[in-house]
Amino acid sequence: MAETRQLVNWAVRLKTSDLPRATIEKTKRLYADWVVCGIAGAPYRVITGLTVMADAVGGNPSGACTTFSGPGRPPYWAAYLNGGAGHVVEQDDLHNASVVHPATVVFPAAWAVAQATKATGAEFILASVVGYEVACRVGILLGREHYKVWHSTATAGTLGAAAAAAKLLGLDEEKTLDALGSAGTQAAGLWQFLATAADSKQVHCSHAAGTGVQAAYLAQAGVTGAHDILTGDRGLFVGSSHGTMDPSVLVPTSGVFEVDATSFKYHASCRHTHPSADALLELMSKHGLKPDDIARVDCGVHQPALDVLGPAAAAESVHQSKFSMGFVLGVLANGQSAQLADFSDARLGDAAVRKFQAKVHMHLDPGVDAAYPKAWTTRMVITAVDGTKYETHVQTPKGDPGNDLTDEELLTKWGKLVEYSGNKKVDVGVLAKELLALEDRKSMDNIL
Amino acid sequence: MAETRQLVNWAVRLKTSDLPRATIEKTKRLYADWVVCGIAGAPYRVITGLTVMADAVGGNPSGACTTFSGPGRPPYWAAYLNGGAGHVVEQDDLHNASVVHPATVVFPAAWAVAQATKATGAEFILASVVGYEVACRVGILLGREHYKVWHSTATAGTLGAAAAAAKLLGLDEEKTLDALGSAGTQAAGLWQFLATAADSKQVHCSHAAGTGVQAAYLAQAGVTGAHDILTGDRGLFVGSSHGTMDPSVLVPTSGVFEVDATSFKYHASCRHTHPSADALLELMSKHGLKPDDIARVDCGVHQPALDVLGPAAAAESVHQSKFSMGFVLGVLANGQSAQLADFSDARLGDAAVRKFQAKVHMHLDPGVDAAYPKAWTTRMVITAVDGTKYETHVQTPKGDPGNDLTDEELLTKWGKLVEYSGNKKVDVGVLAKELLALEDRKSMDNIL
Repeated sequence: MAETRQLVNWAVRLKTSDLPRATIEKTKRLYADWVVCGIAGAPYRVITGLTVMADAVGGNPSGACTTFSGPGRPPYWAAYLNGGAGHVVEQDDLHNASVVHPATVVFPAAWAVAQATKATGAEFILASVVGYEVACRVGILLGREHYKVWHSTATAGTLGAAAAAAKLLGLDEEKTLDALGSAGTQAAGLWQFLATAADSKQVHCSHAAGTGVQAAYLAQAGVTGAHDILTGDRGLFVGSSHGTMDPSVLVPTSGVFEVDATSFKYHASCRHTHPSADALLELMSKHGLKPDDIARVDCGVHQPALDVLGPAAAAESVHQSKFSMGFVLGVLANGQSAQLADFSDARLGDAAVRKFQAKVHMHLDPGVDAAYPKAWTTRMVITAVDGTKYETHVQTPKGDPGNDLTDEELLTKWGKLVEYSGNKKVDVGVLAKELLALEDRKSMDNIL
Repeated sequence: MAETRQLVNWAVRLKTSDLPRATIEKTKRLYADWVVCGIAGAPYRVITGLTVMADAVGGNPSGACTTFSGPGRPPYWAAYLNGGAGHVVEQDDLHNASVVHPATVVFPAAWAVAQATKATGAEFILASVVGYEVACRVGILLGREHYKVWHSTATAGTLGAAAAAAKLLGLDEEKTLDALGSAGTQAAGLWQFLATAADSKQVHCSHAAGTGVQAAYLAQAGVTGAHDILTGDRGLFVGSSHGTMDPSVLVPTSGVFEVDATSFKYHASCRHTHPSADALLELMSKHGLKPDDIARVDCGVHQPALDVLGPAAAAESVHQSKFSMGFVLGVLANGQSAQLADFSDARLGDAAVRKFQAKVHMHLDPGVDAAYPKAWTTRMVITAVDGTKYETHVQTPKGDPGNDLTDEELLTKWGKLVEYSGNKKVDVGVLAKELLALEDRKSMDNIL
């Protein structure tokens, strides 16, 4: 319990003046990146489904909080709808060590509560930094055993969303502990949906963001929660993980922020494919290889890549195609880039991609696995048709801290996402300028 | 997966004409019992807290669905608020074998959706029977290992709520499987809150009922869920239980209904205290014992009684006092009945109760433990001040099928609950008549 309280004490005391310039800049870029994901995701069938449900059971009330899906909503529903919308195109950020996508659980909660509380852009940034820290540290605590069955973005994310919301509500230490207690006891999300590529990944993000908002408002309303929800003997770790718990990972390091350890996604596929994607592009470019020069690709990966990508190997649906290592590498081999538009019903029938897909093999690489999740690496061997072997070891995939996207690359990514959405009302240059001036905003309304 | 599909196939096909008269009567009595619990629970601080949260984040929309807490709400919020309100006085029903309180997760969901869909009373009863069956069978599947850390009413209850809602929406087999998938992947609720007697028990019931409603409407809107959410290798059992899974317990037995295996609560304390409560009353009455005649009470109980009641043994708060075996037996020894009004701030200072409390000891009885959870029994030894030992073995506590409450006992219970609520608008005789005529109702509106 002491460690959870230390984390909460840190969260309650954190001030904008404690944030380094680089951390503020990084948070703004992550937020902008996520907003564009939400714009691209809003038209998706599953997000429409969430909206239909919200209208049916939520009473379709008008509200002040922005959503990607249409009219303003009250805070819970805005957070709920934006959580799913920001994740569905699978281009939102990832925090390596926790295997949590923090943006799409923290930002929808913080954004909704910031509008409801009339917070400034600077206050929104501060609350988001807090939310990232909590989501990521809880994800690290729950660990790899948890991630085998539980979707950490959903579980740890519920606490991150609650922490960001609690910060905006100005809750004190006891009430913030209550909020995390109510969040942790409602945290959920199982990987079972992968077996049939069901729509739960978005539902999980919606649930985490919406429930986090509820948890913070419950605490404000005097509803108490378990203060030792993470490390207690009937808490979240014991209930959903195995092995040895290391509560010390919950305690922030002074002056260091998990926001800064968060990666941007570059390729429009599952993050577990990214180190291999970079390896393929590197080897093909360096050795001047064309798809037909290649007889076989061996990707030495970490175990969770096998767990998550394995069921989607055949790439029978558009969603699965983003999780199929063979399909993703087939797209890259034939076009040097894997954007959202490359994962479509039409592309599922691309013979060149399918031909390359059959050449791709994944296997467990013990060194790659040992480095995970702190580092997402790959060891790739390409065997050419002439028998030559080409090998590389990607240690810092593109988008990771240390191999950051340039402003130009980010703008290009965002432009393609907006273009893909078909939303003609959004000028990505104007939007980017608006979003990147976030800390000077008087309010979080009317950003889109 | 086959067993989950069999359960769903049964649920989709079940018709009112399949229900025996006794099952319909039982369902009506359980519903009436729960409605009275909700009336008594509505004024509680925690329920007011839930309502404040709903107003803040739900936009306080008006809606057609009845709540115990005030104005009508849309279906999600009605189910959410009624879930907590129906449980907070701890007088709602219990299904022994699953250790699930089905009423307060199934009825709020079914009631809200029945009003939204303008279902008849008969359709509401049918959907409730389906919800009970699913909640109870899922609870049996998850089992004792799950219950050690997870609150089964919350987890299994989410699926029961979804099943009842799906039945009222008329979903087919595939969509009902989607609904259970979305429900199961959002199922949550940890016992950690017991350590500090936090308010999560009500939050869990609200979450289960509300999320169940969302899950059914998501399925109706085309949002898919994992069809093998219970028994799949990354499903709910694997994620939250241990040991050997027996999927066959999911399959209903023709003509037998879990509604009929559900118990009414008689004493206003935690159900784990009830067999011992009955044992004490039996021995005191049979042997003419007064509190001061008794030197020591030994309760031989099942392990979960030690787990759930242990942290509350000191009875430092009103909530804990309902979970303290010593306090509960102290109340009964000094007044022969344990009603809601016996658990109050004033009563916490009752010297006679506190004196008796100190004489009470719990220990694990292997035979009692082996019979659990199918049977909730106790083996009690009272040692009198003169050294005489009196012993009994309660096998069917009051309120269990086989030791049912009479109509008069139920009316007395309900009358005391309404009296306790201070709600002067409710005439319990009129209400009971109304509720027990449920199958003839054209709609589920305006019952209160």
